Amino acid sequence: MAEKKRVMLVVSYDGTAYNGWAFQKSTHNTIEEMLARAVHGLTGEDVEIIGASRTDAGVHAYGNIAVFDTCSTIPGDRFSYALNHILPEDICVVESREVYKDFHPRHCDTLKTYEYRVLNTKMPVPTRRFYTYHFSMPLDIEKMNEAAKLLEGEHDFTSFCNVESQALSHVRTIKEVSVKCHGDEVIISVTGNGFLYNMVRIIAGTLLQIGRGKGEPSDITAMLEKKDRSAAGPTAPAQGLFLIKYEFLDGIPDPSDT
Amino acid sequence: MAEKKRVMLVVSYDGTAYNGWAFQKSTHNTIEEMLARAVHGLTGEDVEIIGASRTDAGVHAYGNIAVFDTCSTIPGDRFSYALNHILPEDICVVESREVYKDFHPRHCDTLKTYEYRVLNTKMPVPTRRFYTYHFSMPLDIEKMNEAAKLLEGEHDFTSFCNVESQALSHVRTIKEVSVKCHGDEVIISVTGNGFLYNMVRIIAGTLLQIGRGKGEPSDITAMLEKKDRSAAGPTAPAQGLFLIKYEFLDGIPDPSDT
Repeated sequence: MAEKKRVMLVVSYDGTAYNGWAFQKSTHNTIEEMLARAVHGLTGEDVEIIGASRTDAGVHAYGNIAVFDTCSTIPGDRFSYALNHILPEDICVVESREVYKDFHPRHCDTLKTYEYRVLNTKMPVPTRRFYTYHFSMPLDIEKMNEAAKLLEGEHDFTSFCNVESQALSHVRTIKEVSVKCHGDEVIISVTGNGFLYNMVRIIAGTLLQIGRGKGEPSDITAMLEKKDRSAAGPTAPAQGLFLIKYEFLDGIPDPSDT
Repeated sequence: MAEKKRVMLVVSYDGTAYNGWAFQKSTHNTIEEMLARAVHGLTGEDVEIIGASRTDAGVHAYGNIAVFDTCSTIPGDRFSYALNHILPEDICVVESREVYKDFHPRHCDTLKTYEYRVLNTKMPVPTRRFYTYHFSMPLDIEKMNEAAKLLEGEHDFTSFCNVESQALSHVRTIKEVSVKCHGDEVIISVTGNGFLYNMVRIIAGTLLQIGRGKGEPSDITAMLEKKDRSAAGPTAPAQGLFLIKYEFLDGIPDPSDT
């Protein structure tokens, strides 16, 4: 056994088959539990996985972040290869590295980027049903972008947050919201320092309502002011949401830096 | 009951869960059987589905063609909506129409376009595992295109055909083969008047070998001349293959034209 070290993983997954990221007493079918089981299979240790973002059931990620402590002799940067031999095909550790012992992904200054992907075609496309939200009505992308700009900056996002949220404050800062066409998809991209429960899916549902002509971009201001979930649009379904990436604004110090 | 008519369907499907298109005695899990069951559910009739292309297990389609005869009073163009209410989410009839009574999708002059999609990234991407072939080695797209051009035209494609093929002739005409980058995907697009068993997957496997530096583009000429399956490259896996579309060169005459 080596000295205890903390290892960070960058995790890509297809959320279709899982009850979300976070460990739950009622089910063993979460990304967190799959990662813990894979580490156990590799090192024999029972580790606690600390995740950066607790994505919902059906939500996907290219770069969610997890850390855990291990006394294994496996070098930090080799964990990705070793874990990928054990993990199922719908979870892939794209990168791993040793980090300093107190590194906690939820206690760092970060920027997170989510994408909400809308398949804007008349008929559904079966091969994309788990990775897009099929929305057949025509969308006014310019109006959606006008509305998106009004969400940028620091706001109280109570209206854009699931009523079951237990966050002490609903103030968050969104750095950028953009709406772009990419082939037959409309992609709503949101970057910010933190997100509330269902926040990106409610932003997507609200922008889609405005895009199809129900309401005007300027309505966003009143929605924010009301601080009431019923003021904003519906929660868009989980399968269109991708957690794209985490940026650590102060970098990720190596263990030698501490 | 109305007079018997022939209805054509344009069918999009996710082939992941199926044992291919064609009816098989040993399994009920084929696209053809799902379509026949859906028509039965709608009209009570036991119909024979005539398919244009018998795609393999795991292969996807945006536009495969099926026809069947029915005495139902449902107008031809309404079948798509009615069938989509019965079909599972991984099969979608994107268009339906009445055609003349002798119309047979395999006895027409057609152009078929297939795409083979390669995910050319270092690490696999879980959300795309069923819809791309992950190939992590760098690819020389220019060399692949040089090789592709040598496959165009009329050739005996015995070297590019599964040895179990029962086709009487292995001569086919390929109108175009192109290799393009699209983001992190390399897309091999093949258009021709007809394809042999596994032909597009063997073309893809061969172009990938040349792209990674095993062999030269000019090798294609010798491969074709040998008329021996072992002369060409491996058969690329099913999940990267999409049947994109059928073009009927003489059009699709309406029933009133006959």
